[in-house]
Amino acid sequence: MENIQIISTGSYLPKQKVTNATLAEKLGITEEYIVKRTGILERYYSKEETIVDLAVYAAKDALKKVKENIKIDEIIVATTSSKELMPSISFQVKRKIAEVTTRECICQDILSGCAGYINALDIARNTIVASEGRVKTALIIGVEKLSEFLEESDIGTSIILSDGAGATIIAKTEEKKDYKSYFTVDAEEGEILTCRANEKIYMDGKAVYKYAVTKTVENVENLLTKEQLQQIDTLVLHQSNRKIMQSIGNRLQIPEEKIFTNIHLKGNTFCASIPIALDDMQKQGKLQKNNTILMLGYGGGMNTASIYLEV
Amino acid sequence: MENIQIISTGSYLPKQKVTNATLAEKLGITEEYIVKRTGILERYYSKEETIVDLAVYAAKDALKKVKENIKIDEIIVATTSSKELMPSISFQVKRKIAEVTTRECICQDILSGCAGYINALDIARNTIVASEGRVKTALIIGVEKLSEFLEESDIGTSIILSDGAGATIIAKTEEKKDYKSYFTVDAEEGEILTCRANEKIYMDGKAVYKYAVTKTVENVENLLTKEQLQQIDTLVLHQSNRKIMQSIGNRLQIPEEKIFTNIHLKGNTFCASIPIALDDMQKQGKLQKNNTILMLGYGGGMNTASIYLEV
Repeated sequence: MENIQIISTGSYLPKQKVTNATLAEKLGITEEYIVKRTGILERYYSKEETIVDLAVYAAKDALKKVKENIKIDEIIVATTSSKELMPSISFQVKRKIAEVTTRECICQDILSGCAGYINALDIARNTIVASEGRVKTALIIGVEKLSEFLEESDIGTSIILSDGAGATIIAKTEEKKDYKSYFTVDAEEGEILTCRANEKIYMDGKAVYKYAVTKTVENVENLLTKEQLQQIDTLVLHQSNRKIMQSIGNRLQIPEEKIFTNIHLKGNTFCASIPIALDDMQKQGKLQKNNTILMLGYGGGMNTASIYLEV
Repeated sequence: MENIQIISTGSYLPKQKVTNATLAEKLGITEEYIVKRTGILERYYSKEETIVDLAVYAAKDALKKVKENIKIDEIIVATTSSKELMPSISFQVKRKIAEVTTRECICQDILSGCAGYINALDIARNTIVASEGRVKTALIIGVEKLSEFLEESDIGTSIILSDGAGATIIAKTEEKKDYKSYFTVDAEEGEILTCRANEKIYMDGKAVYKYAVTKTVENVENLLTKEQLQQIDTLVLHQSNRKIMQSIGNRLQIPEEKIFTNIHLKGNTFCASIPIALDDMQKQGKLQKNNTILMLGYGGGMNTASIYLEV
């Protein structure tokens, strides 16, 4: 079995920051209410940048940090808010970074709810493992322009959601690196969180909360033993809502200092939240060689997806 | 390396058939012109069925033909015309066939242009190979509701495109089965064939023709040796346009009787065309055990994707 490692991370947040003060005034609520309910201080709504721009800027941020000469053999983009059906975003990214891609560079956009990035990362890893050397280096991007799908008067979504993009480059390695993934799907609950091309995002906040704090724990129990779970260095949760994240941490008995959090500064960016978190972790020295991380995505679909890996 | 085999195929075409007579009258052209230019006699525009319905009906058609008791561990849907961002089509299919899926059934929709089904099939195969037994059986669906994106007065697209869905079930096998895949992407040509959620499909017919008859040949030359190519039993081309298909066949020096064709009766269904062709081949006894087939997808992106496999 081939091994993979993360060789770079990148991210991009739109120029337009939206503060709690702005939203509080617009929605007729207080800043304290927003913080208490979500833990979020600021989020971003992209006005100048297209969804493709967000993806390209995150990809370029990851590429500029790579020390070796690499060529990208596969680009996978995870999203829930794209209207770019053909060419899909991955093809448009390839066009903008053509010089560092191979002629055979596979391009795929993946729709798998808020956990799309975990699904995309697993596809990239499986392709590296199973393609007998043809695919060695993959660029995985999570990108969202959720502001385009926001009903601005809907407090439940507009105080939480944010635009942005995160990118990760993984490559085949000769070193032994642990890797495990696990997926659970609860399609019968699909209507509690929806996004359709010509509609606004709908979220039944209470039902999503209940889903997130129970099914994630069940998923992780299938992925890791109690001992393995206690030994992880960092739990990288989908940055959905501070209360949900704290509750998952408590139920998994992971101490707070091991749970990476950036939601206060970046809001909930659906598919982009985990790759942006990885990039922030890298900047803070939390993606050191041999560190073990557990990434846990959950949300629309509904579904839960987890990857445990050794950096 | 794990081996995979096709264990079932299925398809579904919408109830509303659109004849050349109808289109000729509407567009002010002759039936002969349509046949000469495309080779197509009839196509389907879905009015009663949603895109999810099309996918579910094709999936159920494939499921009813499976002899063993199976449980689906992964559903991948390839499309270029979906507005179902979350839950994406694969989740909605899982909900409708819940009783034959596992709790861990991965659900992913893939956007990779007209060659999306080949990309999806390769992802499913790689997941089976690399997941260490967790994923053993996968359902791959190609589905399109292109009529929703048609500018009906645009002759170049409206006489060619059609709605429909095809489904394939693959499973891990202990038998040795040849499998090879190859992908090439030409993102710089992306604007010659486009589909965006709020726009109509645009196709520069001449540029697409030129692309299709050259890049496909180049792709196949990378996948197979001349000897291997001559020994295939059936070439399963994306059913794009009879002229394009004949030209590819000529350039690859594959005799016409080895090239599977159903475009005259079904039109060009983008991602659905190859899985519908596989289902028709199965009905005609062309998917017998140990037959070798070369599937060749090409189109929007632009990209070309091929899979050679032993049935």
